[in-house]
Amino acid sequence: MKIAILNGGGDCAGLNAVTRAVVLRAENYGWEVLGIRYGWDGFLRSDVIGLSFEQVENLVGVGGTILKSSRTNPAKRPDGFNTIIENSKKLELDAVICVGGDDTLGVAAELYKRGLKVVGVPKTMDNDLSSTDYTFGFDSAVNEAVHAIDNLRTTAESHDRVFVVEVMGREAGWVAAYAGIASGATLTIVPEEPFEVEKVVSFVKERIGRGHGATIIVISEGATLSNARIDNDGKLDEFGHPRLGGIAQYLAEQIERATKHDTRVAVLGHVIRGGSPSAFDRVLSTRFGIAAVELVREGKFGTMTSLRGTKIVPVSLEESASKQRLLDPEILLTMKILSH
Amino acid sequence: MKIAILNGGGDCAGLNAVTRAVVLRAENYGWEVLGIRYGWDGFLRSDVIGLSFEQVENLVGVGGTILKSSRTNPAKRPDGFNTIIENSKKLELDAVICVGGDDTLGVAAELYKRGLKVVGVPKTMDNDLSSTDYTFGFDSAVNEAVHAIDNLRTTAESHDRVFVVEVMGREAGWVAAYAGIASGATLTIVPEEPFEVEKVVSFVKERIGRGHGATIIVISEGATLSNARIDNDGKLDEFGHPRLGGIAQYLAEQIERATKHDTRVAVLGHVIRGGSPSAFDRVLSTRFGIAAVELVREGKFGTMTSLRGTKIVPVSLEESASKQRLLDPEILLTMKILSH
Amino acid sequence: MKIAILNGGGDCAGLNAVTRAVVLRAENYGWEVLGIRYGWDGFLRSDVIGLSFEQVENLVGVGGTILKSSRTNPAKRPDGFNTIIENSKKLELDAVICVGGDDTLGVAAELYKRGLKVVGVPKTMDNDLSSTDYTFGFDSAVNEAVHAIDNLRTTAESHDRVFVVEVMGREAGWVAAYAGIASGATLTIVPEEPFEVEKVVSFVKERIGRGHGATIIVISEGATLSNARIDNDGKLDEFGHPRLGGIAQYLAEQIERATKHDTRVAVLGHVIRGGSPSAFDRVLSTRFGIAAVELVREGKFGTMTSLRGTKIVPVSLEESASKQRLLDPEILLTMKILSH
Amino acid sequence: MKIAILNGGGDCAGLNAVTRAVVLRAENYGWEVLGIRYGWDGFLRSDVIGLSFEQVENLVGVGGTILKSSRTNPAKRPDGFNTIIENSKKLELDAVICVGGDDTLGVAAELYKRGLKVVGVPKTMDNDLSSTDYTFGFDSAVNEAVHAIDNLRTTAESHDRVFVVEVMGREAGWVAAYAGIASGATLTIVPEEPFEVEKVVSFVKERIGRGHGATIIVISEGATLSNARIDNDGKLDEFGHPRLGGIAQYLAEQIERATKHDTRVAVLGHVIRGGSPSAFDRVLSTRFGIAAVELVREGKFGTMTSLRGTKIVPVSLEESASKQRLLDPEILLTMKILSH
Repeated sequence: MKIAILNGGGDCAGLNAVTRAVVLRAENYGWEVLGIRYGWDGFLRSDVIGLSFEQVENLVGVGGTILKSSRTNPAKRPDGFNTIIENSKKLELDAVICVGGDDTLGVAAELYKRGLKVVGVPKTMDNDLSSTDYTFGFDSAVNEAVHAIDNLRTTAESHDRVFVVEVMGREAGWVAAYAGIASGATLTIVPEEPFEVEKVVSFVKERIGRGHGATIIVISEGATLSNARIDNDGKLDEFGHPRLGGIAQYLAEQIERATKHDTRVAVLGHVIRGGSPSAFDRVLSTRFGIAAVELVREGKFGTMTSLRGTKIVPVSLEESASKQRLLDPEILLTMKILSH
Repeated sequence: MKIAILNGGGDCAGLNAVTRAVVLRAENYGWEVLGIRYGWDGFLRSDVIGLSFEQVENLVGVGGTILKSSRTNPAKRPDGFNTIIENSKKLELDAVICVGGDDTLGVAAELYKRGLKVVGVPKTMDNDLSSTDYTFGFDSAVNEAVHAIDNLRTTAESHDRVFVVEVMGREAGWVAAYAGIASGATLTIVPEEPFEVEKVVSFVKERIGRGHGATIIVISEGATLSNARIDNDGKLDEFGHPRLGGIAQYLAEQIERATKHDTRVAVLGHVIRGGSPSAFDRVLSTRFGIAAVELVREGKFGTMTSLRGTKIVPVSLEESASKQRLLDPEILLTMKILSH
Repeated sequence: MKIAILNGGGDCAGLNAVTRAVVLRAENYGWEVLGIRYGWDGFLRSDVIGLSFEQVENLVGVGGTILKSSRTNPAKRPDGFNTIIENSKKLELDAVICVGGDDTLGVAAELYKRGLKVVGVPKTMDNDLSSTDYTFGFDSAVNEAVHAIDNLRTTAESHDRVFVVEVMGREAGWVAAYAGIASGATLTIVPEEPFEVEKVVSFVKERIGRGHGATIIVISEGATLSNARIDNDGKLDEFGHPRLGGIAQYLAEQIERATKHDTRVAVLGHVIRGGSPSAFDRVLSTRFGIAAVELVREGKFGTMTSLRGTKIVPVSLEESASKQRLLDPEILLTMKILSH
Repeated sequence: MKIAILNGGGDCAGLNAVTRAVVLRAENYGWEVLGIRYGWDGFLRSDVIGLSFEQVENLVGVGGTILKSSRTNPAKRPDGFNTIIENSKKLELDAVICVGGDDTLGVAAELYKRGLKVVGVPKTMDNDLSSTDYTFGFDSAVNEAVHAIDNLRTTAESHDRVFVVEVMGREAGWVAAYAGIASGATLTIVPEEPFEVEKVVSFVKERIGRGHGATIIVISEGATLSNARIDNDGKLDEFGHPRLGGIAQYLAEQIERATKHDTRVAVLGHVIRGGSPSAFDRVLSTRFGIAAVELVREGKFGTMTSLRGTKIVPVSLEESASKQRLLDPEILLTMKILSH
């Protein structure tokens, strides 16, 4: 047997641990493993390297991906899918393990329909795939966000200052919600529930009135204003997003203008995406890597690995890859209960 | 309404986050909250303090427990259960939230049978309660263990040395298994599967033969020898435990004697139990605290909070409290696959 | 004896450890200690609290300042200096320990000339005071910056991406230089040496040509362009600073435009200022706190504590407070040697 | 030019950063660099590898040593020194950079006398070399120790428990002193000042009497009892060291016996030695590496790099290598002031 592994989309903590586990388990079975570099882009160019356990042995705790990644989508290339299937034949691959988010897995599902023997492994630091309880990369990102917010809190309290902290999350607010709950944020704002600036301003004023100048507001980059049409003096687009500078910057300016209270912005961005994976992510990605090899061995192509409770189970790639999972009501309620 | 909260057994990361969430949610409902100090011992002595959100607001990331804890068991005190029920009446408590491991929750179940309005919150860094997918404190401990083992690895590799690393876990090997998987240990030994020293020695020798002198063996404190009777020159008891010095010390001596290879011991012990909780544990303990108050409000006494998949659900205290959960087969298999 | 302590300027890691050490040492001598809240602002309003060791015992590792701080300068208030001297008399203070950067210490020097019995403790995370080898807060900030850059590196390498990382430092580049050296940055740019965009672009192109797309450039917020007049299409001011968006943003845009290579910005800002102090800073601030009390006891007013080699020595407040220390030639040379 | 670098003695954080800086600086000058593996042992066997910057580029933050190390002393091998000088000629080395503690540097000094062109770089996590203000590895170890003690403190306080924490340090107490000061230990005991068990017991009893059951005692492994002859019931040797189990274990048993108060031991050992270096150690080791190459270039053989204040200066190998530096009086006094 000869299999290949590729990583698509943005990097996140745990990718190398998947590769390590795949190579180790495949070597147990006497299989050869190729690494396709730069995701689909590398597959289109047959940019591959051989992988031995020796090479990947020490990678369980190393962030990023030694296979490198890209956001190339073969659907947007002329004859992209066929080129990949051709290259797969030339490379004599018996199966391909695709590690990625909804885009990568959507391509994998399409290639499976076209005859490629594919197994998927879900990956997104956003944790917003409906087909699995958790994705690796998320727990690491939340821990990094909490560390950063714990740091900001000491400054907020020393100067009775408001901090608006922006974290990744376009449509789903998992990182903001977990980071907000875990860091004891005074308020957390997510895309699932559009907000009103006036209410946030009142909330901050009420806190100042109680002598609590220090305030930490955690907000997803994709949060939107519910009453954008009214507020809008040209700074917001039709979806209630600021045209320039990000939602945290916009909100901080509004708070400072309305309260005259010192208000700062921190955009956590890429800092929380990279770095060494947390223990949870190292274990999950290792289990996913082993499970992916087992799925190949059992001939269960067109599936992807998934965490359900404490079990790793296969789910259909086609049905699962693209379904987004928004924050569930209990977490939304928890966030509200914790506003203070 | 007037409720009380107590912590029993060993401290672990997340206890203060439970207290914080309980107080905040109870204040939402206008309830009064008492903190019982030193677990059942404090209940026997009515050692209580009032708790306001102001006091606990900043505790989500603080390790240990401000309520303090003890291992006192009222069953072993003359008239212990009655004293507690009496004190509960004197304090005019409408409900008691008991946060603890199987001992504490077993007492809570007994008190519920005797009429006390009790809700439980499971807590053990050992993660070995069958009634919940995860307990808080476990993820923090595993992250600390992985950090320590990552450190030890650099020394092991610089000197081609064997390290035998002992972590907590008397009957169940969760901490060892997760720490071993996450740190890329070369071998992990847990109580669920008694081991033979000869096989470990062969494993180490085989590695040295391949030029891999650096070896990390993670072992639960409760691991036992399968062939203790044969090995035993008086150093082991009838259960295959060393009489003195711990299992890691015993194994390291055997390895060094048999291989002549430099072998060291690291007992992680309390260092991984304490400290600031991980994000996962902060979120889980906060959700448990809120859920416990909801159970009180709904009158669902005699239950405890439990994590099932991504949901918090109530389970019966009597049925659940004392059932231990050993490592499941997939994790045991993962550990074996990863031996290298 | 009755003494007071105040913190001025931005918070940094170690302030609470100074307070703790001052209170402990003063209690050894049987003195009373007041904490003046909000720096000079609080002194103008006699906003003081009593301080006992019980209150500050556990603060050695706690970031921020429980005394809170402000940037108020009494020189800019009508009768500001006199008010402070009056309040000092009303509070019956025998001495005041002022912890702060050049602004705060400049005020302290002026008050000393006007008769106040003052001892200073230098504090700035910028490390740019000429009167001491190191200031506390700096080591903690550098460690946090290195942690963030270590994280960014994994993403840079996974995507062959350029990151421009901005850290604090208006006129002196200590944080950038140390963070750049310690994180293995490919290039570090500091205010001490104005730079040319063209040279940075050539540097990045040369790296890409060698197959090294991943590049980490660390830059101080106060870095300037040496040939600003030529480059300037209105985006730069007369000092070679971008009018909008910061120097990292400006440089990243220029690199991306000239190289067509994916280039991102990370502004570390307040995240690296706060949080629990490093061991180095905890020790230095504790030693400074004790030394400040000894200076009071010895009647050496008008001085401040200073680290020289491994010794704590007093230096004159007037001569020392305002002298800025730029990066020394060896560190500048080290940065250049490490460009690669 | 062709130079070699070797690491001797125990590993510590920063060794790889020295290697990286040496290779980079040597490549600037067009020199070839060999890595001698396993310290003097490898030199005796001519076990060398070529080193390019490509290989070491990413090692600034990696713990341990890729050159590996040993404690072999050529003085104890027949014809050891001559073999090394012979091998140096066969390898056509123009200079050797020796990175190590007093043993390694003592050998280097001897080889210099015998004609080898040697430059030294001091290394010990114990920080006890008189010829330099700080050695790299020390700051990292202290930070790890403080992290561990911060964790233990939460458990100590939750259970009103005494912890006796043992850290490395045979003759000098630098790690204990800095870790004790930085972690807010209630008592710190170092080899420089032999102690009496009775006084420690009184100290703990006095704390319990004040309602402070939680106590953290930090002790160097090499601490001794001052009145060993009196105390001794055969458990102590003539130097006041326990014959079995370590000084922390001995002290904890004495405290528990005398106070009946729950007392635990934590031996931090190798956990604090390894791992990724702190920013301070990364900068210092990089500066030392560059400086060592400059010393070679300037022909200043028989010297070693040294930190004096903020400067790197050369000192004589012969005079400096073996002089141990004990804790200075100010640090000893600081420890005493902080006992509480």
